[in-house]
Amino acid sequence: MPKLKLAKRGGTATKKKAKRVRVSRAGESGVFQQRGVPSRRAKAELRHIPWNSVELEQLNPLLQRQFVVGRDIMVARVLMKKGCIVPQHQHINEQVTYILDGALKFWIDGKEIVVNAGEVLTIPSNMPHKAEALADTVDLDVFTPPRRDWIEKDDRYLR
Amino acid sequence: MPKLKLAKRGGTATKKKAKRVRVSRAGESGVFQQRGVPSRRAKAELRHIPWNSVELEQLNPLLQRQFVVGRDIMVARVLMKKGCIVPQHQHINEQVTYILDGALKFWIDGKEIVVNAGEVLTIPSNMPHKAEALADTVDLDVFTPPRRDWIEKDDRYLR
Repeated sequence: MPKLKLAKRGGTATKKKAKRVRVSRAGESGVFQQRGVPSRRAKAELRHIPWNSVELEQLNPLLQRQFVVGRDIMVARVLMKKGCIVPQHQHINEQVTYILDGALKFWIDGKEIVVNAGEVLTIPSNMPHKAEALADTVDLDVFTPPRRDWIEKDDRYLR
Repeated sequence: MPKLKLAKRGGTATKKKAKRVRVSRAGESGVFQQRGVPSRRAKAELRHIPWNSVELEQLNPLLQRQFVVGRDIMVARVLMKKGCIVPQHQHINEQVTYILDGALKFWIDGKEIVVNAGEVLTIPSNMPHKAEALADTVDLDVFTPPRRDWIEKDDRYLR
C-alpha cells in the first residue's frame, strides 16, 4: 500500500475535499508511516536511526526482520533461528548479503553455497535463491532499489 | 584506472594486435583486477567473498578500508582507530552508514551527530560531511552507485 495521508484544507477536511499527498518527512510518524521507511518518492534525507528504534517484524516463529531505507538503498537486519528456511524466490533488486553471525546455506544458480559469519554473497537481480539457517544467524541484507514488497508487506513467501 | 586486460588472438598476442577488453569475471584475478571489485561495466554476478580474502587498504595510520562491489551496490568495511578524522567531503553516491562497533561523530547539515554502535545514518547524495572516530570503530558503509573514486584509488582526502 502506498504511504499516503489525508491532507486537511483549512483544518476541515472532508472525504471529498481530502487530497492524497505524499508523506514528505521520512522517519517522522505519519498515518501509514513506519520509522526507517520513507515514502515511495521521498527525497533523500539525512536521518539518524538506532536499530533498536526500528520495528522488528516477526514474520514467522524463526524469522525476524527490520530495515532502514534511504532513497535507493535498503539495509535490512534479518534474524534467523537455526533451521529457518527462506523458500526459493527472486526479485529485481540487486542484493548483497553479509553474514554478521551464524551461517546461511544458499541454493542458487545450481550450486549450494554456505556463507559463514564474515562472508559476503552478491546476488544479481532476478536470480532465484533459497536459504536455510545452519545456526542462529544475523544476516545483513543490502538491496537496490529498496524492496517494495517488504515495505508494503507483500511478502507472503516469508510469512 | 579502468580495469582492462590484454586479449590474445590465437594465442599470439602482440602489442599491435592486443585489444582492450573488459575483465568479464569479476572476482577472478586479472591484470588490474582486485578481489571484490568487478570492472566498471561488469554484469551483475553471483560471488561468494569472505572479507578476509578482500584487500585491506591502509589509507593512513588510523584508517583501513576494504570493500565489495556488486553492480550498483558497494559495501565497505572501514576500520578506524580512535581520533581518526575523515575530512569534510561529499559525493554523488547515496550513503548508509551502520556502525558495528565504536562510535563516529559526524559534522553534517549544520549539526553534530554521534552515531554509536547499533545505529545507522542515511546520508543523501552530495551532502558534505566530516567524521571523527570517538573510539576504535568498525563502520559499515553502503553506497549506490559504487564509489568510483575508491575503486580507482582517487581518494586523496583519505590518504
